[in-house]
Amino acid sequence: MADDGFFKHETALVESPSVGAGTRIWAFAHILPGARIGAACNICDHTFVENDVRIGDRVTIKCGVQVWDGITLEDDVFVGPNATFSNDPFPRSGQHPERYARTLVKRGASIGGNATILPGLTIGERAMVGAGAVVTRDVPPMAIVTGNPARIVGYDGAGSLSTDAASTTPAEAGACATRVAGVTLHRLPHVYDLRGNLSFGEIGNPIPFEVKRYFLVFGVASKEIRGEHAHRALHQFLICVHGRCHVVADDGSNRQEFVLDSPTIGLHLPPLVWGIQYKYTEDAVMLVLASAPYDPASYIREYAEFLELVKPGAANLAT
Amino acid sequence: MADDGFFKHETALVESPSVGAGTRIWAFAHILPGARIGAACNICDHTFVENDVRIGDRVTIKCGVQVWDGITLEDDVFVGPNATFSNDPFPRSGQHPERYARTLVKRGASIGGNATILPGLTIGERAMVGAGAVVTRDVPPMAIVTGNPARIVGYDGAGSLSTDAASTTPAEAGACATRVAGVTLHRLPHVYDLRGNLSFGEIGNPIPFEVKRYFLVFGVASKEIRGEHAHRALHQFLICVHGRCHVVADDGSNRQEFVLDSPTIGLHLPPLVWGIQYKYTEDAVMLVLASAPYDPASYIREYAEFLELVKPGAANLAT
Amino acid sequence: MADDGFFKHETALVESPSVGAGTRIWAFAHILPGARIGAACNICDHTFVENDVRIGDRVTIKCGVQVWDGITLEDDVFVGPNATFSNDPFPRSGQHPERYARTLVKRGASIGGNATILPGLTIGERAMVGAGAVVTRDVPPMAIVTGNPARIVGYDGAGSLSTDAASTTPAEAGACATRVAGVTLHRLPHVYDLRGNLSFGEIGNPIPFEVKRYFLVFGVASKEIRGEHAHRALHQFLICVHGRCHVVADDGSNRQEFVLDSPTIGLHLPPLVWGIQYKYTEDAVMLVLASAPYDPASYIREYAEFLELVKPGAANLAT
Amino acid sequence: MADDGFFKHETALVESPSVGAGTRIWAFAHILPGARIGAACNICDHTFVENDVRIGDRVTIKCGVQVWDGITLEDDVFVGPNATFSNDPFPRSGQHPERYARTLVKRGASIGGNATILPGLTIGERAMVGAGAVVTRDVPPMAIVTGNPARIVGYDGAGSLSTDAASTTPAEAGACATRVAGVTLHRLPHVYDLRGNLSFGEIGNPIPFEVKRYFLVFGVASKEIRGEHAHRALHQFLICVHGRCHVVADDGSNRQEFVLDSPTIGLHLPPLVWGIQYKYTEDAVMLVLASAPYDPASYIREYAEFLELVKPGAANLAT
Amino acid sequence: MADDGFFKHETALVESPSVGAGTRIWAFAHILPGARIGAACNICDHTFVENDVRIGDRVTIKCGVQVWDGITLEDDVFVGPNATFSNDPFPRSGQHPERYARTLVKRGASIGGNATILPGLTIGERAMVGAGAVVTRDVPPMAIVTGNPARIVGYDGAGSLSTDAASTTPAEAGACATRVAGVTLHRLPHVYDLRGNLSFGEIGNPIPFEVKRYFLVFGVASKEIRGEHAHRALHQFLICVHGRCHVVADDGSNRQEFVLDSPTIGLHLPPLVWGIQYKYTEDAVMLVLASAPYDPASYIREYAEFLELVKPGAANLAT
Amino acid sequence: MADDGFFKHETALVESPSVGAGTRIWAFAHILPGARIGAACNICDHTFVENDVRIGDRVTIKCGVQVWDGITLEDDVFVGPNATFSNDPFPRSGQHPERYARTLVKRGASIGGNATILPGLTIGERAMVGAGAVVTRDVPPMAIVTGNPARIVGYDGAGSLSTDAASTTPAEAGACATRVAGVTLHRLPHVYDLRGNLSFGEIGNPIPFEVKRYFLVFGVASKEIRGEHAHRALHQFLICVHGRCHVVADDGSNRQEFVLDSPTIGLHLPPLVWGIQYKYTEDAVMLVLASAPYDPASYIREYAEFLELVKPGAANLAT
Repeated sequence: MADDGFFKHETALVESPSVGAGTRIWAFAHILPGARIGAACNICDHTFVENDVRIGDRVTIKCGVQVWDGITLEDDVFVGPNATFSNDPFPRSGQHPERYARTLVKRGASIGGNATILPGLTIGERAMVGAGAVVTRDVPPMAIVTGNPARIVGYDGAGSLSTDAASTTPAEAGACATRVAGVTLHRLPHVYDLRGNLSFGEIGNPIPFEVKRYFLVFGVASKEIRGEHAHRALHQFLICVHGRCHVVADDGSNRQEFVLDSPTIGLHLPPLVWGIQYKYTEDAVMLVLASAPYDPASYIREYAEFLELVKPGAANLAT
Repeated sequence: MADDGFFKHETALVESPSVGAGTRIWAFAHILPGARIGAACNICDHTFVENDVRIGDRVTIKCGVQVWDGITLEDDVFVGPNATFSNDPFPRSGQHPERYARTLVKRGASIGGNATILPGLTIGERAMVGAGAVVTRDVPPMAIVTGNPARIVGYDGAGSLSTDAASTTPAEAGACATRVAGVTLHRLPHVYDLRGNLSFGEIGNPIPFEVKRYFLVFGVASKEIRGEHAHRALHQFLICVHGRCHVVADDGSNRQEFVLDSPTIGLHLPPLVWGIQYKYTEDAVMLVLASAPYDPASYIREYAEFLELVKPGAANLAT
Repeated sequence: MADDGFFKHETALVESPSVGAGTRIWAFAHILPGARIGAACNICDHTFVENDVRIGDRVTIKCGVQVWDGITLEDDVFVGPNATFSNDPFPRSGQHPERYARTLVKRGASIGGNATILPGLTIGERAMVGAGAVVTRDVPPMAIVTGNPARIVGYDGAGSLSTDAASTTPAEAGACATRVAGVTLHRLPHVYDLRGNLSFGEIGNPIPFEVKRYFLVFGVASKEIRGEHAHRALHQFLICVHGRCHVVADDGSNRQEFVLDSPTIGLHLPPLVWGIQYKYTEDAVMLVLASAPYDPASYIREYAEFLELVKPGAANLAT
Repeated sequence: MADDGFFKHETALVESPSVGAGTRIWAFAHILPGARIGAACNICDHTFVENDVRIGDRVTIKCGVQVWDGITLEDDVFVGPNATFSNDPFPRSGQHPERYARTLVKRGASIGGNATILPGLTIGERAMVGAGAVVTRDVPPMAIVTGNPARIVGYDGAGSLSTDAASTTPAEAGACATRVAGVTLHRLPHVYDLRGNLSFGEIGNPIPFEVKRYFLVFGVASKEIRGEHAHRALHQFLICVHGRCHVVADDGSNRQEFVLDSPTIGLHLPPLVWGIQYKYTEDAVMLVLASAPYDPASYIREYAEFLELVKPGAANLAT
Repeated sequence: MADDGFFKHETALVESPSVGAGTRIWAFAHILPGARIGAACNICDHTFVENDVRIGDRVTIKCGVQVWDGITLEDDVFVGPNATFSNDPFPRSGQHPERYARTLVKRGASIGGNATILPGLTIGERAMVGAGAVVTRDVPPMAIVTGNPARIVGYDGAGSLSTDAASTTPAEAGACATRVAGVTLHRLPHVYDLRGNLSFGEIGNPIPFEVKRYFLVFGVASKEIRGEHAHRALHQFLICVHGRCHVVADDGSNRQEFVLDSPTIGLHLPPLVWGIQYKYTEDAVMLVLASAPYDPASYIREYAEFLELVKPGAANLAT
Repeated sequence: MADDGFFKHETALVESPSVGAGTRIWAFAHILPGARIGAACNICDHTFVENDVRIGDRVTIKCGVQVWDGITLEDDVFVGPNATFSNDPFPRSGQHPERYARTLVKRGASIGGNATILPGLTIGERAMVGAGAVVTRDVPPMAIVTGNPARIVGYDGAGSLSTDAASTTPAEAGACATRVAGVTLHRLPHVYDLRGNLSFGEIGNPIPFEVKRYFLVFGVASKEIRGEHAHRALHQFLICVHGRCHVVADDGSNRQEFVLDSPTIGLHLPPLVWGIQYKYTEDAVMLVLASAPYDPASYIREYAEFLELVKPGAANLAT
């Protein structure tokens, strides 16, 4: 390890004076003078770090990666081998934008090997960009994205899915608990006669609150996400009355994904549960019954704020 | 006019002693002894009336019609030329059912020329069977049916429809009155952003009652009718959240037809309004919000009973 | 035969003084006083003819038919057994319209057995209504209609169709004559390469006129007919560039039906050819290249007028 | 009853000398001289029977029916009121075909009220034409047809169908007997894994014969019938591997209808069972495993012959 | 800067004697002896340039790129980081093709970061390959391609598109000028009646030339491009009569993209306008009316030649 | 060349003592101490090889590639430039799996430039991964994969396909030999009449074995492969009775691909032929007739074992 507290391979070129303690920089790497690099990082062979770059602590940069001007990697970020950033949305040789597009990779996110990150994007906390993905839009916290262009395919920690909700909901009308505190999944009654099918619910059976509002979500493009927030005191009961939608519920400690694909499946989301809706089919119509009128102040839209509210010892607004 | 107060063409064969005053029976008609025929009827050439037949007052029977054992035509019925009844659902020569199927054509109904009425059906009050129709199912009161097999295409007096509900509902969120007492049509809020569409309602805005129950109707074969009843004290709020459905509302005096074809259109049916749902598209899902738990006693299923309840001076159960 | 030159069966009731020579009226028929009936008609058993009726010469009315007030049957009309007319579009017993709907069956038309004709329609010259059809719209000259409701399925004399035009057009680019004077059917060049298909025509090859106008017909409901006219001096070249359409061409003596179902099939219609387009598929787009700008005076819209123009010895406007 | 052993209403016109004993002819009926009518018939009011007509014994002809030249009604036929025959496929007034189309209604068939029978057709033994149907094609023995144009909707005696075969086949792999002698219905094994679904059978389990031939039936237009024959010695095992098809099996005494709509449902048809396949969906593919190579002599194509072979005491070819 | 006029980082290995003035070669780069590199290039860290390579002036090669034998990069090309070329279409270890596939990146083109270019392709002038794209076919001049496999999504400089042409064409029938010299966009008359829609044009209104030829383009695979040429003297009038197609018009100075998606939108392309058709929907049918018969000599198929012809001072062939 | 029999560029860092003779290691490459590298390899500039790595003989590793712990490259493997491996399926900075995922690239396989290989996969013998592909699943022997995610598009050596099987099967019913020993392709009889299509086969004509079992494969997701095995003694006869499927047959020496897309095409696979089924359409239903009951011991599931069995001189189990 060098005198200044970090390790530098003998073939590495480290021109920056600002490298944190315990950081290791390996063979044929090249760090330009303006770069600021935190402590305990691991910067592998054949990497290149330009000047206007901020790298946090405990960041891993695997071989063959370049970190260009305008890029920030927060603490604990992982960048896989040959993953490629860029900072000019329409590059022409010899033409430079007035200001390079800025890319922000947030705390704990990982970028898979050979992934491509287009300029100007934000990769959310603990998000996971799959190997080989081409990321063309912002990635939400905890989301897992793959493909070209990259689409959300899941959420970190939400558990593996059985093929359909039918296997996780009771076969007969009734409710079952879930891994997420307070969240219950319901099989609703299903009456069939020659004139068609009918399903229903009543207050108390099984809807555990007075319904003060309903809303319908429909016409959602499949690549989009709805929801992605929690409520301070609102109960919701979700039924996908046509088509199919995935819902992720998260109490801050546990996370679980549900497929709603029948008018006979209902999901109760109590207050202080973070909810995400995604993978809507084109024809999906989501019915939400809610326990209170619309109140923007009810929404918690920042995941970090939500985590604060639900951590043990926090004053629970819902009580 | 014959001595007994009705007219008989010289070539007509009238074997029944029971023909009302003012009734006219024309050339080559043949009335068997058991038939009972009311007053002021018009029974045209080449008709045939069997024995176990009851015909009310002011009935018209055009040429070429036979009225078989088991058939009742109530007052003011019109039967077009060559319209054909039957009283045996699976006729074989020389085999007679123990009891002939009974056909009931109710007060004021009309049957178009050359229509065919299968055995055992009831044609409701003031219904209209189109010329050439083949009627294979009961026809509700006031319904207009055509085709082979006959399907409901409208309701007498419910007004002509504009092509879609968009032209009859407010363009902006809000409510409008209708021709039917107490029924309101609502344009619900529609919020569109890049992630999709959203529509919603709240108790009081515009849902004018506490919601105690919801039900969903889906998978209805297009030829079927749902509804066709009133409630003594129940409020309902209808939204066709997918596909399209027609609703006819009737307060006993006025009748109006609505096309629900958008999640942003709601229809409030208060108590003591007769409601009919029909013309469901295959993919239609109807959401009904209701003001009380399910109670079979709430239903008024006979139109005649309904009319009694809503006539001026009746004790209104809903108050 | 009776003294007044027509035959009356002994059981028939003929109250009209206006029956033409050679007409026969059969058993149990009943003719009211106001009816006017031409010569050489055949009016069969169990028929009924009301007062405000005009029946031409050589008309056949088979058993069980009634001809109501307001109906005109021109010369040479055939009415099959039990075929049923009506004259009130919304009949209610005891209620009579101010004026009965008028029905006109034109010269040489035939109505099949047990067909139903709704009130107020015109059945065109030599049209053929199939047995059991329920006619709800006017029927054009020579059209053959069947079903409930009745739709056009062909044209009298236009010949049987091979399954598709491919079998009637040349396999290689080129033209062939047709049964209709001056009309030619063309296989247009078809060039295929990896980038797609291309077809073309040039003035003189094979389009036999200078193009002064084009028009496109599209979005035609399948039950509708376009065309049904001739032009005095206009040449047209028809290509169904998407979907499929049938064209009937008629020079007054010969008639032929063509299926246009490929961008590589063209049909040249010269002046003084009666053309009918029908059986449009929903997605059909018809391109017509024309030899002159639009001129309403160019159109011959009455078939009778057309026949006058093309009969031998007529001054041919197209020359 | 008249001296010649049949009853004639006083207003009836009976010009034929050839009417069987016990036959009754009612008011305003008209029988032309050439008609030959069997014994114990019932010919109702306002009927008309032309000359070149043969009517068997025990035939019922209800009011308003005409029986034209060229029509034969075999024994025990029923013709409902206002049912309409015709004998000229393209009638024009005053033009008569060289020979009238011949219509044959076979023993025991029934024609519902107001039905229309186009010229030149055969209605098979014990077939049933529904009221108001318009029959445009031959009707097979025992078939029930309705609609305009008429289509087969069932077979007399084949029993009412549950909504799908799932309810009539075992839920678990296995076999069940049926009402038809020797015919068994099988639920085949169904293996599902991530790679897809698999179903199978083996000789002996459950296929009760050595397979010597297979054939596939596909691309059947929905209005068509396949099968309609029996085999002298051939076993068949039917599986509808895609889409859906109905099969009627008949041992001469009992008849049953099956819906094959899954690759996991098989039907064993032993020798000397009359089989009918119909109601193919467009995408249906029927797999038939057979116990012998193709042999045209194996087929019994006439139902009458089949009945002879299976009647008690007949030498059973299959043994 | 080294004595020979270019800069070489001290860790770079430059074995070629043929490097232009002002070119900079950075850390850990490796240039083999046979490579020829122009002036003012920028060749970044960790790059590798083989022998049979020609690189023009002002070329940028970002980090991690290899330029293999057989590759030519013309002047002003940009190659993003980790972009990957190849020169063997089916590589097997130790097996070398007789001659390596040749790749040509033409003047001013850009290749985004981490893009993959398959062997043997040409990337046209000023084309833009998006980051992460996998290019499997030639890229036309100015085209923008993205995805795996890469498809054309636009053309550089053709302007952003409104969602449909309706917003860029006049609402009423009429014409509007465009950014491209001589090109006009037309809203054609649209006549709607119950029988369908009709649109038309006439010589002079608005078609500004005599029509001597038409051609139809159809059945184009969506990934294909038609057109991509100019004409010396030919006028064309384009109507997409079914489906949808994009057209880019370019007068050498300005470029604009049009969406043709209605039979009522026409586009006039005069001589000496470069036209590109792409994004054909599967069902698109393009009608082109042209002012002269087909003449291969009319076509200008090289964009460079086109630019010569339209540059100020050039003899304009169209006059 | 260095003393120890392999070449090392002066800038390369070779820390491993285990490098085979004739291997060349180029500029800026870095080989860690634990790596074991065979003879005659070519390891290009800017590569990195970790410790727990085994590389066979004659392997090519192009520039910019890293070979991580847990990866084995067998003899004759080719790895294109910037191709990227990984060994952690869900990487987080600073968190290491207990054991790295192991990747195995088998003998003779090639990996195209810039391809991405997800952790833990096996790339089969002589497989070909296309440039830019992202491989997320195991790749079978000889398969060619492209895209993101990568899908099989063909098999090395199986021959180019004509567009459909129609061109490779006899037009008339009958059989033809193929390039693969013992495999025959059959055009089965196709009988068409108005009622539909029929195709069939018999034991001996053309099915060359007694059928003891059938199975049906259906509902296969298009990305899946079925089959990929040989049988010791089992004959199979394959017919794709709905939809379409590709079958590759391989006798160890020759390989051929067949498109089964009609119920009239059959493929006989005798014992000891390696068979692969892939490219199922969604609606495909594959019927397989087999010569024996199900016996797991019949299957040869390892291609290497298969090759042993079919090599000349091997005892052929099928005799």
